[in-house]
Amino acid sequence: MRVALVAPLVSAIAQPYLGGAQALLADLAQGLIQRGHTVTLFARDDSFVPGIAIEPIDVPRNVLPANFSQPVQERSADPGFFAQANLFLELFLKLRQRSAEFDLIHAHSFDWPAFACSTLVSDIPVVHTLHLPAVAPEINEALRVLHQQGHPLTLVTVSHACAATYASYTTIDRVIYNGLDLDAIPFNPKLPVDAPLLFAGRIAPEKGVEAAIEIAEKAGYRLLIAGGIYDRHYYERRIVPKLQRAGERVTYLGQLERLALWKVMGQSLGLLFPIEWDEPFGLTAVEAMATGTPVIAVSYT
Amino acid sequence: MRVALVAPLVSAIAQPYLGGAQALLADLAQGLIQRGHTVTLFARDDSFVPGIAIEPIDVPRNVLPANFSQPVQERSADPGFFAQANLFLELFLKLRQRSAEFDLIHAHSFDWPAFACSTLVSDIPVVHTLHLPAVAPEINEALRVLHQQGHPLTLVTVSHACAATYASYTTIDRVIYNGLDLDAIPFNPKLPVDAPLLFAGRIAPEKGVEAAIEIAEKAGYRLLIAGGIYDRHYYERRIVPKLQRAGERVTYLGQLERLALWKVMGQSLGLLFPIEWDEPFGLTAVEAMATGTPVIAVSYT
Repeated sequence: MRVALVAPLVSAIAQPYLGGAQALLADLAQGLIQRGHTVTLFARDDSFVPGIAIEPIDVPRNVLPANFSQPVQERSADPGFFAQANLFLELFLKLRQRSAEFDLIHAHSFDWPAFACSTLVSDIPVVHTLHLPAVAPEINEALRVLHQQGHPLTLVTVSHACAATYASYTTIDRVIYNGLDLDAIPFNPKLPVDAPLLFAGRIAPEKGVEAAIEIAEKAGYRLLIAGGIYDRHYYERRIVPKLQRAGERVTYLGQLERLALWKVMGQSLGLLFPIEWDEPFGLTAVEAMATGTPVIAVSYT
Repeated sequence: MRVALVAPLVSAIAQPYLGGAQALLADLAQGLIQRGHTVTLFARDDSFVPGIAIEPIDVPRNVLPANFSQPVQERSADPGFFAQANLFLELFLKLRQRSAEFDLIHAHSFDWPAFACSTLVSDIPVVHTLHLPAVAPEINEALRVLHQQGHPLTLVTVSHACAATYASYTTIDRVIYNGLDLDAIPFNPKLPVDAPLLFAGRIAPEKGVEAAIEIAEKAGYRLLIAGGIYDRHYYERRIVPKLQRAGERVTYLGQLERLALWKVMGQSLGLLFPIEWDEPFGLTAVEAMATGTPVIAVSYT
């Protein structure tokens, strides 16, 4: 099969990955190639996935990741919204013209224009994988409209819990868990006596990095933090002061390449996972366990 | 011909009309009917045009007219944006399904989603009439993308001056002036000695109502103001204080029905037309002259 993969445009699909969706998309592209399929990845022009043909998209700097941590009844679009919206319009017009080149379009962008503009393609199947729960009212409503108007669209998400969040808007056609190559993850049976705790994940409110800092402090352990800055405003306003106050007890490692992350995971006492939203899958929890590190999580309801 | 007219959703298509586009759309619907065509007007549920079949659209209260008076490089969407965007998505999905019912879709909405979602219809011709000059960067870019990607779309605008503003983005297929039934407009050859000046137009910065108040004051004449409040924030912040200060010299009449407006026009000393943007057509200037009232305008470049 000839597959066109459409990436989220807010970050490069390249190591170190901004989040689970980006890592999964790179793995998926490589996995499809290994199975003999042809893959074209439509992604930001600074993307790089070994062995994968990338059709680069020039994305302006004011296109930033959306903030889904505080669901509002009616979200207001950010200043870069229309720049990105026109990129999706252009991309799906192109894909419609080039539909003879592909057997399938598989979109991973969680943006209203990606859903609205993917309706342009009707010659070949379009699959959307929803990497996030139903936290965006505008996307919920678009999915409801597409479902109610009988628009053919295949929807996949990454867990049954995530699928359940969409129940009142549309039908999720299939749950496909995030895949992970466990053989690639180094298992580490031994720990130094002074091993720290670890927080791994995008630096955004819903991931609970603030709670992780508090937990480590109260428990009297050092904490490492690994993850890309997804929400810069939140990072500067809420996290930087806490890092400064914590001194040497808390170290922000930045966004790590996967192998580096797995090594840090394997050398940690435990992965703190105090999530503050409906975590759609929780890739880092699985990765931590694969390195031999237990996960200390909270229940979120 | 069976014509589907798509209205702007920000106001009812009903007397008194919010602006020239709304008045023109009602006239067009009635004119097409008179020539033997079948017309279906897709418009807000509080719309009413005598003799015209309306398919009502339930528009939430937070959907407000866009503010085009201060062009910015990258416009940010207002809170009601996605509510309206999903209405356009739903409407054009419906029109695609029902394309056998119509020979033509003629859209008058000046909103990014109306252009993006009208691409869903490919079975029958889609015409957009641009009632505004190229003041919305996001729409300019969408038109550029649609043009460059060869998407079939017929574009009409209301003056050659307005068409020229789009020259660097797309090709305007036809200029069709706003039509006006001059026989319906009462001519008034006589004026009372104390006749006031008149400003008629949407209450929005680009229409120059503030300048009109100043001109009338300096010239020592009373001023009447007729027009719907398009930009409420501007009205409350900039106009209300001026009205209070002016006292009896300036009277705001609100949004008038057309016949009432024409009568007021005919009894005015002159129509002040101190526009502060690329006026796409200037319907009130023609109407004023038809009532026998001269137009006092400024050059805008």
